[in-house]
Amino acid sequence: MSLIKPRTLSGFRDYLPSVMIPREALMQTAREVFRSYGFAPIDTPTLEYLEVLSGKGSDETDRQIYRFQDNGGREVGMRFDLTVPLARFAAQHIGVLGTPFKRYHIAPVWRGERPQKGRYREFVQCDFDTIGTESVLADIEAVAVINGLLQAIGFDRFTISINNRAVLTGLLEHLGLADKSVPVLRSLDKLAKIGREKTATEMCEAAEIDPSQAEAVLKLAECDGDAESIFSQLPEVTGGNELAASGIDRLQQIYQGAVASGVPANRLKVDVSIARGLDYYTGVIFETTLDDLPTIGSVCSGGRYDNLAGIYTKQHLPGIGASLGLDRLLAAMEQLNLLPTASTPAPVFVAYFDKDFRDDYLRLAANLRTAGIKTEVYPDAKKLGAQLKYADSHGFTAAIIAGGNEWNESRVQVKTLATQDKQDIAYSHESPDDLVAALNAIVN
Amino acid sequence: MSLIKPRTLSGFRDYLPSVMIPREALMQTAREVFRSYGFAPIDTPTLEYLEVLSGKGSDETDRQIYRFQDNGGREVGMRFDLTVPLARFAAQHIGVLGTPFKRYHIAPVWRGERPQKGRYREFVQCDFDTIGTESVLADIEAVAVINGLLQAIGFDRFTISINNRAVLTGLLEHLGLADKSVPVLRSLDKLAKIGREKTATEMCEAAEIDPSQAEAVLKLAECDGDAESIFSQLPEVTGGNELAASGIDRLQQIYQGAVASGVPANRLKVDVSIARGLDYYTGVIFETTLDDLPTIGSVCSGGRYDNLAGIYTKQHLPGIGASLGLDRLLAAMEQLNLLPTASTPAPVFVAYFDKDFRDDYLRLAANLRTAGIKTEVYPDAKKLGAQLKYADSHGFTAAIIAGGNEWNESRVQVKTLATQDKQDIAYSHESPDDLVAALNAIVN
Repeated sequence: MSLIKPRTLSGFRDYLPSVMIPREALMQTAREVFRSYGFAPIDTPTLEYLEVLSGKGSDETDRQIYRFQDNGGREVGMRFDLTVPLARFAAQHIGVLGTPFKRYHIAPVWRGERPQKGRYREFVQCDFDTIGTESVLADIEAVAVINGLLQAIGFDRFTISINNRAVLTGLLEHLGLADKSVPVLRSLDKLAKIGREKTATEMCEAAEIDPSQAEAVLKLAECDGDAESIFSQLPEVTGGNELAASGIDRLQQIYQGAVASGVPANRLKVDVSIARGLDYYTGVIFETTLDDLPTIGSVCSGGRYDNLAGIYTKQHLPGIGASLGLDRLLAAMEQLNLLPTASTPAPVFVAYFDKDFRDDYLRLAANLRTAGIKTEVYPDAKKLGAQLKYADSHGFTAAIIAGGNEWNESRVQVKTLATQDKQDIAYSHESPDDLVAALNAIVN
Repeated sequence: MSLIKPRTLSGFRDYLPSVMIPREALMQTAREVFRSYGFAPIDTPTLEYLEVLSGKGSDETDRQIYRFQDNGGREVGMRFDLTVPLARFAAQHIGVLGTPFKRYHIAPVWRGERPQKGRYREFVQCDFDTIGTESVLADIEAVAVINGLLQAIGFDRFTISINNRAVLTGLLEHLGLADKSVPVLRSLDKLAKIGREKTATEMCEAAEIDPSQAEAVLKLAECDGDAESIFSQLPEVTGGNELAASGIDRLQQIYQGAVASGVPANRLKVDVSIARGLDYYTGVIFETTLDDLPTIGSVCSGGRYDNLAGIYTKQHLPGIGASLGLDRLLAAMEQLNLLPTASTPAPVFVAYFDKDFRDDYLRLAANLRTAGIKTEVYPDAKKLGAQLKYADSHGFTAAIIAGGNEWNESRVQVKTLATQDKQDIAYSHESPDDLVAALNAIVN
């Protein structure tokens, strides 16, 4: 029989243990942070009716959906984000769930886009949302959660940029350009990339506005400095518009509340130039960048929306949420050498030395696990050198070596793999405490 | 615009928080047990080349694969189990991974079978395997892992049945029926359901054997009693066949090693009648049943196989593994009232009483989180009754209530929701220790 070539599809990848171990740790950290704020987990099907998925999407999203006809002749698709399933879920279950409804959802999504370096057709999204409230407290909490996530993952130097769509919308209203927000935002989004002059020109053309209007928009986007200074500039720059004023007030409340919630002020930046591509945000918006690696872009973004599930239900469901870019963060942590490299989750390795004592190795390992020490026993009684090579290459911290002599004398040898230090430790199955203490000293 | 009906596909389901909370806890417990033995996590793509997926499957499996042509014209399918992807993964990466390779994989799989009560087209599998060793130590460890899983999940009364395919194969060899194992096994599998007589008749017809041969097979399957008694009967019942003798010896080693590893002997049952449907097991096989709910069938099954990835690589990869029936266990736990019912992961609820003190509620909650207490703040300053109703219905344990008076007097009220007990506790943002202590006493 000829062999089938083992391979993965283009744009898809295997996760080997050395990558999957920190990836699982990241997901677990995120869960713990979400839970600590009372966000509850949900899960939804991978496959949905195509009409449910493509209901509100753009043409581009639609093209990217993995779609097919199932055996029952239904048109189905694989979810391409966690927001559309959340909207469908909320519309379907909100009567049982009640509001406010706080959920997190960590799950893969699929997009048939052209694969690029660091971008895959299957990737995990990690979202949290609070639905059914317009309270600024939920906005503040979202900022605190983002701070908590990055901090718990191990980052110290990062910046959460906050803005409120109402500020720019208010200015446009003041300028008589209320209906021009989409082309204006689209041009403004390019400011950092193409510079002031080209942005102004493009804005005038795209939105059919005059240069003084473009100038007023750019002046707003260029408000810079610390939060206090920006808050003092904004009323004038927005021409005293009322909508803008209420937007500024909300931004101030969010800023102040986040600091009260323990977010260090130097991690917060009021940035009225950020817009986020999605049309669906209507209030506050967030982006988060790593100070040591700003080029990778935002690692946690989100914002407030007026109505989550309008295409599925008449119930008005405002909310706020954000999405942690898990795989982007992993790549960043790899670049910043923040990832462990072990390919085993267990720190302690037990060499299998003498077949006559097989059940003793097993019992010793069981004793260590009972004491909370993760322990692997090598399965084959091979030469010690081969076993220790395996232990080294997998990144174990300590190895336990015992042959007939050691067992008969109620002791084992403990080897610290990084330093090659060896110690003889008294051990019997009835009195494992010395060994547990010695290992805890090495492993922790 | 007309609304799109929010609904899920037949055979698929949403997981609401009250179900997803224990489901996530179950998965986390499984991960911890796997890791404690040095099993490392991996992940593989949801979509694979169809030829990779259907390479070794039966016709029935093939029919159940969700398959389609992707945008690039490739024939692809969604994985229907985690074993085929493991085989492909091992064939592709074993050079980097080395052996022994110990992995766990917890991930959804999809099967387009007719939906039935309690069976879904999308469900999570939870597998562990040790690849690249024939050592009995790996077999013993598999039994210890199964015991560790069930115990950590919270079960006390369960039975791990173990058998070795070599025992029956040896008997068939002795009877001159070595080539009849498939029809004999298929008939034998029905013993419990259709009884001795009908099984014998069917076996004679299906395998074209004579009644005395069927009698010998049934006599083996009916060996009963404690392990010692079974081990003493088996040599005679298998006619002294050598292959059977080595199979019996291995079973004895597994039994003895498992007990040495801390598996209580009363949870182990040597049962030479179990066969497992899959042809691909060649050595020891396991099934696990809950003593209080035997009718739901095996909740953790597996066994040893000769060669994992023969259709993808010439490298011989023997191994052993098992699969935890996560969703079946969840259903069992629900029936046995072992599941918590809360729809929040946080035990402490903070009522939002007085808008003037918004940032104080936030800071108090931040202080509790720092002390490790998961805490939710209600986002809207609604009437207290409505807030406490929300707290009750979500299953919070304690509520913190503070209005202007309390804040000004540096105290808060703590209400134990189950008993309606109230306490006044001194609290200031600088000295949260009394409150932390009071809550820990209620929550833990």
